[in-house]
Amino acid sequence: MISGLIRRVVVVGGTHGNELTGVYLIKKLEQFPELLHRSSFEATTLLANPEAVVLNRRYVDRDLNRCFADEDLANPALMSYEDRRAKAIAAQLKPENQPNVDVIIDLHSTTANMGLTILPSSKQPFNLRLAAHLSALDPAVRVCCGVQCNQDTPMLRSLAPFGCTLEVGAIAQGILEAHYFQQTERLIHAILDYLEAMNQGIPLPVSSHITLYQAIASVDYPRNAAGELQAMIHPQLQFKDYEPLHPGEPMFLTFTGETLPYQGESTVFPVFINEAAYYEKAIAMVLTEKQNITLTNK
Amino acid sequence: MISGLIRRVVVVGGTHGNELTGVYLIKKLEQFPELLHRSSFEATTLLANPEAVVLNRRYVDRDLNRCFADEDLANPALMSYEDRRAKAIAAQLKPENQPNVDVIIDLHSTTANMGLTILPSSKQPFNLRLAAHLSALDPAVRVCCGVQCNQDTPMLRSLAPFGCTLEVGAIAQGILEAHYFQQTERLIHAILDYLEAMNQGIPLPVSSHITLYQAIASVDYPRNAAGELQAMIHPQLQFKDYEPLHPGEPMFLTFTGETLPYQGESTVFPVFINEAAYYEKAIAMVLTEKQNITLTNK
Repeated sequence: MISGLIRRVVVVGGTHGNELTGVYLIKKLEQFPELLHRSSFEATTLLANPEAVVLNRRYVDRDLNRCFADEDLANPALMSYEDRRAKAIAAQLKPENQPNVDVIIDLHSTTANMGLTILPSSKQPFNLRLAAHLSALDPAVRVCCGVQCNQDTPMLRSLAPFGCTLEVGAIAQGILEAHYFQQTERLIHAILDYLEAMNQGIPLPVSSHITLYQAIASVDYPRNAAGELQAMIHPQLQFKDYEPLHPGEPMFLTFTGETLPYQGESTVFPVFINEAAYYEKAIAMVLTEKQNITLTNK
Repeated sequence: MISGLIRRVVVVGGTHGNELTGVYLIKKLEQFPELLHRSSFEATTLLANPEAVVLNRRYVDRDLNRCFADEDLANPALMSYEDRRAKAIAAQLKPENQPNVDVIIDLHSTTANMGLTILPSSKQPFNLRLAAHLSALDPAVRVCCGVQCNQDTPMLRSLAPFGCTLEVGAIAQGILEAHYFQQTERLIHAILDYLEAMNQGIPLPVSSHITLYQAIASVDYPRNAAGELQAMIHPQLQFKDYEPLHPGEPMFLTFTGETLPYQGESTVFPVFINEAAYYEKAIAMVLTEKQNITLTNK
């Protein structure tokens, strides 16, 4: 267990301005702040990238969720809109000589078919136990750790030691889907209730094991020398996030109809398959290993 | 039948820069122009909004597919990027004192679950017969006419007397889906083959009836006085394009969980349900009537 109690929790939406589930959940929580109220800690909201929300774009100048590396936050030469937002958010959530935020819940959506995914801020036992609790409450919840699953990532969630990103989908950018809106809202409340019970010394049950999808590599689309796409996600792989992909199975389909197989040597479980925002990041999908983790009480 | 033969056909993609199915089909057809070749007419490609394609956005300054009203094309004061593109495209497809383009096939995608939809350029018998042929070839093809279904619309397709828009989906903006890529490609070739056979005096069979979904109204999202959304598409209606919506059935779900029913007096068949690009156009869905049309040979 952590040494101190949870005192400050921030629910963040609109880190990407065209992921409307989080944007509108923040608007709702701002309108009805009593929904966040728990007796043992302060929970507030943050609309992280309001200018991108107005423009209905992921970002204005650069991806805000890659702006939180310590060296970037300390670099006065970085003055894009998102760099300035990152510095302002860091000052707000992690002020010097004042209590920092303990838990960040960052609300995202994806065009990949990732259902309800928890991406813990790090593999600290606290975060894994929270994820285990959520996936026990709803077996549809999956837990995924990125290649960088630690406090040193440039993501917004790295500003607090505890918490997670919620990724829900498949949802197109720029739209609301009521089903995922409601499911994300339920997850927020499940997290707040879990923290409240822990603070009150009557922690909610957590299973001793968790299935974790650990990212091991990303795969780019086949491209020509000029960097132009030469293939699409294979129709047999589209929407098959978290399903096993065996060596030799179809991965891409070229524009001329040729199937390109997965050429790895071990079975993997792809996620973020065909995420719209990752075309520019040279990521067609992220390959994960399925791990069974035994949780400790620490 | 039309009086003259079809001489010029243009396949258009990227009218909206983030609808990648059309963008990449145009790239493929540019790379393999022999795929377009038919003996009796010239078929070419047009990437309509290249700057929006580069930006991966629907448009730069304004929706190109609303820039083709005659008075706008003639108005020298309209000088946004898309207004200039519209004038250049009109000069190319509809040159003065030269043969104009006869058929435009404009490739689009939608976040609504519209499957394979043909939107004829007008209700001229030529266009309806082409649509009937396509829907007979593949019963999954549906035929839909907008509220403005005539040559006077401000859409790009209005530059030619014949042709259609293809709308495929549900596809998120900014991604390719191989399944819809291939199906759209098949539709393009089916249209070219139909035109070729007609030009050669051996027209392909056309059924004498067609089911047409005729738009009668659009419905905006519930909004507050400031114009902010107050509700989402109801989960029971999401992805139910072309299915009957009866009076009293759920239409929207407010952020606080209240169901708002469809308050019309007759059964309708909504389309473009939750299209991302229509949030800014104040369109949550377009209501259609299902009509059975008898086709003439004229």
